[in-house]
Amino acid sequence: MNSINTNIHSVTAFAPATCANVAVGFDILGFALENVGDYVTLNCHDDNKFVIESINSNEALPLDTDRNTASLVIKKLCRDLKLNIGFSIKIKKGIPLSSGMGGSAASAVAALVACNAFLNTPLSSHELAQYALLGEELASGQQHADNIVPCIFGGLTLIHSLNPIGVVQLPIPDLYCVLIHPHLHISTMDARKILKSELPLKDYVKQSANLAAFIAALYSNNISLLQKSLTDVLIEPQRAQFVPGFYNIKKAALEAGALGVSFSGSGPSLFALAKHKSDAHEISKVMSEQLKCENIDSDCWVSRISKDAAHVTQSS
Amino acid sequence: MNSINTNIHSVTAFAPATCANVAVGFDILGFALENVGDYVTLNCHDDNKFVIESINSNEALPLDTDRNTASLVIKKLCRDLKLNIGFSIKIKKGIPLSSGMGGSAASAVAALVACNAFLNTPLSSHELAQYALLGEELASGQQHADNIVPCIFGGLTLIHSLNPIGVVQLPIPDLYCVLIHPHLHISTMDARKILKSELPLKDYVKQSANLAAFIAALYSNNISLLQKSLTDVLIEPQRAQFVPGFYNIKKAALEAGALGVSFSGSGPSLFALAKHKSDAHEISKVMSEQLKCENIDSDCWVSRISKDAAHVTQSS
Repeated sequence: MNSINTNIHSVTAFAPATCANVAVGFDILGFALENVGDYVTLNCHDDNKFVIESINSNEALPLDTDRNTASLVIKKLCRDLKLNIGFSIKIKKGIPLSSGMGGSAASAVAALVACNAFLNTPLSSHELAQYALLGEELASGQQHADNIVPCIFGGLTLIHSLNPIGVVQLPIPDLYCVLIHPHLHISTMDARKILKSELPLKDYVKQSANLAAFIAALYSNNISLLQKSLTDVLIEPQRAQFVPGFYNIKKAALEAGALGVSFSGSGPSLFALAKHKSDAHEISKVMSEQLKCENIDSDCWVSRISKDAAHVTQSS
Repeated sequence: MNSINTNIHSVTAFAPATCANVAVGFDILGFALENVGDYVTLNCHDDNKFVIESINSNEALPLDTDRNTASLVIKKLCRDLKLNIGFSIKIKKGIPLSSGMGGSAASAVAALVACNAFLNTPLSSHELAQYALLGEELASGQQHADNIVPCIFGGLTLIHSLNPIGVVQLPIPDLYCVLIHPHLHISTMDARKILKSELPLKDYVKQSANLAAFIAALYSNNISLLQKSLTDVLIEPQRAQFVPGFYNIKKAALEAGALGVSFSGSGPSLFALAKHKSDAHEISKVMSEQLKCENIDSDCWVSRISKDAAHVTQSS
């Protein structure tokens, strides 16, 4: 039987933005980014009520605790553990809404990590991931773990199974990630709806060869093989329509030295990998210029793949 | 300009049997077996004629040099290099016909390796593989490299691309392979014809997670992960119909300690992987007993995954 540490009153946790799919691993690969993510602060009270006190976002995020991923998952956790506790919740979004950067996952994970800090017997990362999946189901209509797992575990992760969650922490390549967010809104639910439910066997063979080569490249630190393998022939062609000028942006990034370019998660954000920081900045520049040609503003981050998992930043 | 070494008159080469697909790598993974394979002997003459002198097989293999994989590929090679040479060809088949053990690939590769020994400037393994692909096209109607690449390179291989052939030599796990050949004939061409040309996205996600985990397991020598990943949800269910009692055979093998069981190539042969030699022999016993229940005789091999590539065994 779990219980609450009554010495703790307020906890803030940070959860990083994540790039899911990574071109070749639809629904199974993802990595965490540095310096961009969501903060959730929980202040406890003993009336069993959950209230979203504030969300620092100009965008329409639900304050209804059953429709917000952060509150939904901790309510379920507290109910399952029969904890006599309620929380007022403050959410500080660093991740733009519907950007493909794992915002719904990060809010849910930050809330779970903060909630976990109140427990006398904290849950394992695997247990937290099972709760975070419920948030993904709320946000996208489907349980997919390719944002929540890198968010909870850090690094570059493979989700080998969903029930129970099987995680492989892959070697992290010594590369820079460019993440660019065009100011377009695409909900994960819509981005999933357009995907064909059946795929050609010949495309599957090509994509699986790329996936296997990508994993081999990570373990053998073979950047040339990684570059050859980082191509999505299955999903990207179906989603390219979401970003005007997609192929021009990609071409410009590759010409500026990107090892590979594709959607981050379900888009519209794009990621690119690069060997050097200077390349990464040049790539980010040419990508935003190409978007500008389409009259689309964008934000951009240059980051390492972060080893750091979601974590508590303040506790009192 | 290449030329013939006129000091050489006769060359014999051995090429190993191979297990393609390896459950999770349809058309992209394969490994070589020890102590089972085909021998091809080439005796040169200078009249530019190619003659199949003998094939030690009870089974109907074509003597027409344009319809036999061994002769077809070396004829093409000699023509491309404009070599003034002909060969009488002896084929000693160690691999049963239409067994799913890479017999057509092994005969073609043994012929190519023998032919290569006559050249003053031998071709590279990659170049030989391009010629061997023509034999696979003749045998199965499609250029697939998952038998020829492990046959030419040895070990456990990933074919990353076909044109040009991109090969990744994967770490070889310290395991035993059971290969069982039920006395049933299924041509590769027929086994490919029944495959659906489109696959469900959700099955693709599951299979790709298994493939990625299998590659990660090889590099991290994680046998438990390898065991969890060695499951084919895409192709095996479509081909199970070819072997009566398939699921009983598989169940018996898993209960006897197999880490995984699936078709070798397009079947009807099955492979299983095991930690210990004693397990492998027990698995081979229960699999052949299960086949016997269906009134099907079988042959069985227990082997390591062979590091050895196809090679010359005699030259004079």
